[in-house]
This record gives sequence, structure tokens and C-alpha cells, in this order.
Amino acid sequence: MMRIKLTIAYDGRPFEGWQSQPSGRTVQDQMEAALERIAKKRISLHASGRTDTGVHALGQVAHFDAPANSSMDAAAWMRALNAHLPRTIRVMASEGVADDFHARFSVIKKTYRYEIDTSEVLRPLRAGLAWHHPQVIDRDLLRESLVLFQGEHDFAAFAANRGDGKDLETVRTIHEARLAEHGETLALTYTGNGFLYRMVRLLTGSAMRCATGGEPVRWIANLLEPAGTAHSSHCAPADGLTLVSVDY
Amino acid sequence: MMRIKLTIAYDGRPFEGWQSQPSGRTVQDQMEAALERIAKKRISLHASGRTDTGVHALGQVAHFDAPANSSMDAAAWMRALNAHLPRTIRVMASEGVADDFHARFSVIKKTYRYEIDTSEVLRPLRAGLAWHHPQVIDRDLLRESLVLFQGEHDFAAFAANRGDGKDLETVRTIHEARLAEHGETLALTYTGNGFLYRMVRLLTGSAMRCATGGEPVRWIANLLEPAGTAHSSHCAPADGLTLVSVDY
Repeated sequence: MMRIKLTIAYDGRPFEGWQSQPSGRTVQDQMEAALERIAKKRISLHASGRTDTGVHALGQVAHFDAPANSSMDAAAWMRALNAHLPRTIRVMASEGVADDFHARFSVIKKTYRYEIDTSEVLRPLRAGLAWHHPQVIDRDLLRESLVLFQGEHDFAAFAANRGDGKDLETVRTIHEARLAEHGETLALTYTGNGFLYRMVRLLTGSAMRCATGGEPVRWIANLLEPAGTAHSSHCAPADGLTLVSVDY
Repeated sequence: MMRIKLTIAYDGRPFEGWQSQPSGRTVQDQMEAALERIAKKRISLHASGRTDTGVHALGQVAHFDAPANSSMDAAAWMRALNAHLPRTIRVMASEGVADDFHARFSVIKKTYRYEIDTSEVLRPLRAGLAWHHPQVIDRDLLRESLVLFQGEHDFAAFAANRGDGKDLETVRTIHEARLAEHGETLALTYTGNGFLYRMVRLLTGSAMRCATGGEPVRWIANLLEPAGTAHSSHCAPADGLTLVSVDY
């Protein structure tokens, strides 16, 4: 058996997220269908984690176990997959890994980027790739909010209920949460040891709530207090979110 | 009567080009349908020129005459159009202009950009936005080819036959044709007083023919000689082309 690690990029717009659904219109469904066409049998693919409908990836990671009778190496699997996938999904890299590598359980850190487009009219080629927000945004308040997220915290206030009983342990460490500005784009980059369900969108939506005067920055500090039971309901739209990389 | 000038951006991927077609799936059709819904009557829109299926625009320009009984100013037309258009088409700017302004006949110069993506695997978010060309490209030969295009020439060798008898006059001036490189993208920018049918794609395809060793650069010089009757058949794909701006 050979375990193969894939680095995958996708345009989230045409898909109902990563995780397999009965509709079949997810990235996992497309990838497993391609694997089945190549291997002539069902092969399960394990990703670093889900991404929601409309969320993009530059460096999602997943692994699968190649059939014992296969003579294909990692590079051959990458070529074959790209020949069978729509061009909205591409395998960007592939490598053979040890049997104890697991795309989800071996994660050390992940990096997400959230893009906000501040132009008055959203250029068509940015549609679906950024949160269009032409209203005034206070950059200093945005930076102050992001700084509060850094470090180890209980992020329960910034997690959506997925309804599957996961994410009961809600302490995570964010190594870095920073703002960069390029032309009319604000890019918020988050690197951490893990993220709860919808956490990046809730952090972004909450920081933007402060940066647009809806709440004082103190409100975020309160939500991060260990004993708190309040939740933030300010979830930024999926459009602007990209899973940039997963480190092992 | 008020003549209104619109600056329009569009994602070329979902459309069969600018010019109205029986299918209705063109940018002009979408815009004229929006104008009709707003004005409750047919209004003709005149663009600076056509763009082909799959070609993008950041700054296409078109004009129309607002109905005499309309009280809407240019800004109101822009807002109303954007409310009725798909988000793959946006009016980026609008202004009232003199009655003798004509989006096609008043053009002084146009700028096009052609993007080539040299990465081994094309990132999904670049699909349809660049010519994917991972094979070796000689940048010096590409630049030498572009330099030859600059100045006033008879570009008949770099025009496709549109079959409508236009473009009989084939002398044009290219003020600038230059190469820039950003990461894995080569961007070729062309500014000129006018461009023949498919001319930018034929210039780009021909320059790439030289830059990949298919022809010596001398071949382009020969095609530009006044007495020549030869044609280039090397047309770059529509994906990489964007109409950047039109100056008046």
C-alpha cells in the first residue's frame, strides 16, 4: 500500500463545499469520482478539514491509500487526477507519505486568508472572491480586533453549531492574525493550530463589526473571556475566504 | 436628449462576446435588456468595438441616448443598470457627454492586456483568465518581437477575416507593446490607435511562436513589410485577453 498526500486548489464558487453530499456537487465527490475512474474501485479521500460552500482553496491537503496492485507513483496519480477533474479543481502537488500520516490528525497549523474589496463597484472578476464592502472601515479598529484573537483562547463564542457533536473542545491557538492592504483589497490572514466550524468567518465578521462602529473592541475581549457564554452572530460571507495552506 | 457614456467591466467567460447575437448571451444583449427594463423602451448601446467570446473587459466604453422624458442623471443610470445586470457585468463609471461623442468613432487609443500563466499546473482561480503555457518561453525573443510591433505598420498579416467587409484599411499605430512579469504571469500590454479583428491575439500568438523557437523574429519583420501578402495563423486563445481602457 502507498499513502499519497495531495495538495489541492479549487474555485469554491461552483461547489457545495468540500465534504461529500448526496447532490455530488462537492469537491470531495468530484475527487473521489476521479479516483474511482482511474482505479476502477472506490477510494476514500481524507482532507485536512471541510470548507464551506463558496470557500476557495490554494492549498487544501488530503490523503488516500493507493490500491496495492497499482504501479502508479505520486506524480502519475497527480497527472491522472488532473486529466479527470474539472479545471475548477487542480492537484497542485503530490507525494508519497508514511502510513501514519493523516491529512486531518497530523495537522500542525493552517493558514486562511479573508479578502474584503472596498471599491465602490465590485469588478466582475472579483465577484465571488471577496466580501464587497464599500462602506467606511476603520483600519486601526480592525487591527486592534485582530490582535485580540492572537494567542491561546477558548473560541467557543466564534464557532457555529455544526450539529454533529464535534468541536466540543474549543480552545485553539492563533499564532498570527494580521491585516494587509493592496489597492482596494483588505487581506486578513489567520494562522493557527486549528479552527472551529465557521471560526474564520465569525472572527472576520466580528472584527468588521468593531471596525464599522457596531461594537467597541472591548466586546471582542469579552467574548474571549473563559467563563463567557455569549456568541457572536456576525459571520462574514463565504466568498472572501481561502484556505491558503496546511502545515504538517 | 442626454447622451451618456458608460465604462463597463465584464468577466468574458459566461458570454459570447460583446456584440448582440440571436442567442442573447452577449454583453450587449444583457446591457440592452437592462436598459429596456429601466426605460420601458428599446435603447441602442454603441460600444468602442467588439470583444470576442471569452475576452474580458476592465474598461470597455459604450454610449446611449437617454429618452427625452427621462429625469435620470448619469449616476442614476449607473445605479439602475447595476441593479438589473448580472454581477459578471458592472458599470464602473458613467457621465453625461456632448452629442457629438461617439464611443466608436471618437476613440483616440485603446489598451489591451494579454496574460500568460507559466505555472506547471494552472490554479483554478486563473482558469479562463490566462493562456496556460508551462512550456519554455524565451523572454528576450518575446520582447524583441513586441518591439517590432511598435510604430505605424500595415497589420493586414495580423488580422482575421471577419467576413463583413470592415477593416479594409489595415494601417494602425501601436504606441507601446511591452512585457511585464509578475510571479508566474507574463503580461503583454498593447496600446494603439486602433486594433483590427483578432489583432491582439494574433500579435501575441505570433510573438509566442518566436519566443518558443517556432520561427525566427525576422519572420515577424517580414509579415510587417508593406508589400507582404502572407498571414500569421498563430492566434492566442481568448482566455488571456482583457480590454483595459479606451481613451477619448
